[in-house]
Amino acid sequence: MTVNRGSQIREGKAKILYQTDRPGTIIQYFKDDATAFNALKKGQIKDKGILNNAISCWMFKHLEKSGVKTHFLERLSDREMLVKKLEIIPVEVVIRNRATGSILKRLGLAKGRPFQPPLIEYFYKSDELSDPLIGETHIAYFKWATDEQLAFVRAQAFKVNDCLCRVCDEVGLELIDFKLEFGLDEKDEVLLGDEFTPDGCRLWDKKTGEPMDKDRFRQDLGGVEEAYREVYRRLESFFGQKT
Amino acid sequence: MTVNRGSQIREGKAKILYQTDRPGTIIQYFKDDATAFNALKKGQIKDKGILNNAISCWMFKHLEKSGVKTHFLERLSDREMLVKKLEIIPVEVVIRNRATGSILKRLGLAKGRPFQPPLIEYFYKSDELSDPLIGETHIAYFKWATDEQLAFVRAQAFKVNDCLCRVCDEVGLELIDFKLEFGLDEKDEVLLGDEFTPDGCRLWDKKTGEPMDKDRFRQDLGGVEEAYREVYRRLESFFGQKT
Repeated sequence: MTVNRGSQIREGKAKILYQTDRPGTIIQYFKDDATAFNALKKGQIKDKGILNNAISCWMFKHLEKSGVKTHFLERLSDREMLVKKLEIIPVEVVIRNRATGSILKRLGLAKGRPFQPPLIEYFYKSDELSDPLIGETHIAYFKWATDEQLAFVRAQAFKVNDCLCRVCDEVGLELIDFKLEFGLDEKDEVLLGDEFTPDGCRLWDKKTGEPMDKDRFRQDLGGVEEAYREVYRRLESFFGQKT
Repeated sequence: MTVNRGSQIREGKAKILYQTDRPGTIIQYFKDDATAFNALKKGQIKDKGILNNAISCWMFKHLEKSGVKTHFLERLSDREMLVKKLEIIPVEVVIRNRATGSILKRLGLAKGRPFQPPLIEYFYKSDELSDPLIGETHIAYFKWATDEQLAFVRAQAFKVNDCLCRVCDEVGLELIDFKLEFGLDEKDEVLLGDEFTPDGCRLWDKKTGEPMDKDRFRQDLGGVEEAYREVYRRLESFFGQKT
């Protein structure tokens, strides 16, 4: 069954969302645009859109097999993924296996400090407010999710972590932290949405400890395209198929 | 039974804590020093220590009568309060009845927006880190309180709010928000600690909406001493006794 791309819904920092002619679905188009620090830093990473679409497709398929329900339907082209249309819960869910990034200064932690068990944090999804940290009390007060939905989101997030830590480990990467977004489908079922890519997670090479993710762009470490391509290459060999 | 002041334990921003010769107790000595913005702004408010000691004694006594267990034992002098020695839980508990202060920019809210029911927030008590906002997940992860202790703290905080909103209302003040600290006594019982004063709460005059608390100092509104004295005067007439 073919799907035709309709009008643009919204252009985000790394993706464009389009209507389709298949009810209840939208297309995520992955751009090469890269932003950091709430878009104060902007650039492009060659072929990032193609690599991220492929990586996300693999990860979503793998998660589905592991019992995590996602919005993923199919990869339509190099840069296009067909997904279920969701009403996004405006909460970014972050799982941290080691301390790095914003939490270091915020809580005075040493870089690389392991979190065992992993630490979960919530941020309010708002570009204008630069995605502020929130607690469960804010989510409940502002009705961003019901207690039941949040409990489910939390359990799913830990499941995603378990599942993808194993995948990363198999390909010589350590999954340091990542951000997830969830949403409600037409039946009010909570599904994992958005994407899972080196834009929204941190991956360190197991041998060298080198970052293989958007931190190379954020921190001007060089080798940004090479890192994305290397993550793609390793996952391609693990999943044993092009996408 | 007399109590003698022993050696200094610690000098804080607004109080000095002393050992005593009565086991399991310490003395809180209230200073006139005022600080704001994590002590970037410093000053003195004449007689603040005397007024705050009296206000806190009244509030703690009233809370005890209403079933909230506190560390309060007795007022020893103008500036000294005898309290039970607690192992402080390093979490500042904030209850907000209306939006003002740090939450405005953080969540993009309008000043004065009512929270119904009140909103509860948690901050990690750390001068070096400027008391960062935290969620329940941080409290659990870092074992700052057990789930059971946090549930109790939360319930007590709302009880304090109900109780003190009524008191404030009776004297023509609206209790806008406040910060509480809790700790464990020798029997591991969770008690309300620290103080309850215009340093750590916001009180607006019901008729004029004018702040009658440390915001006058923070924002250089003038009439700082007068506001503290007026809050003292109104509570004195409500409680019908000097202290």
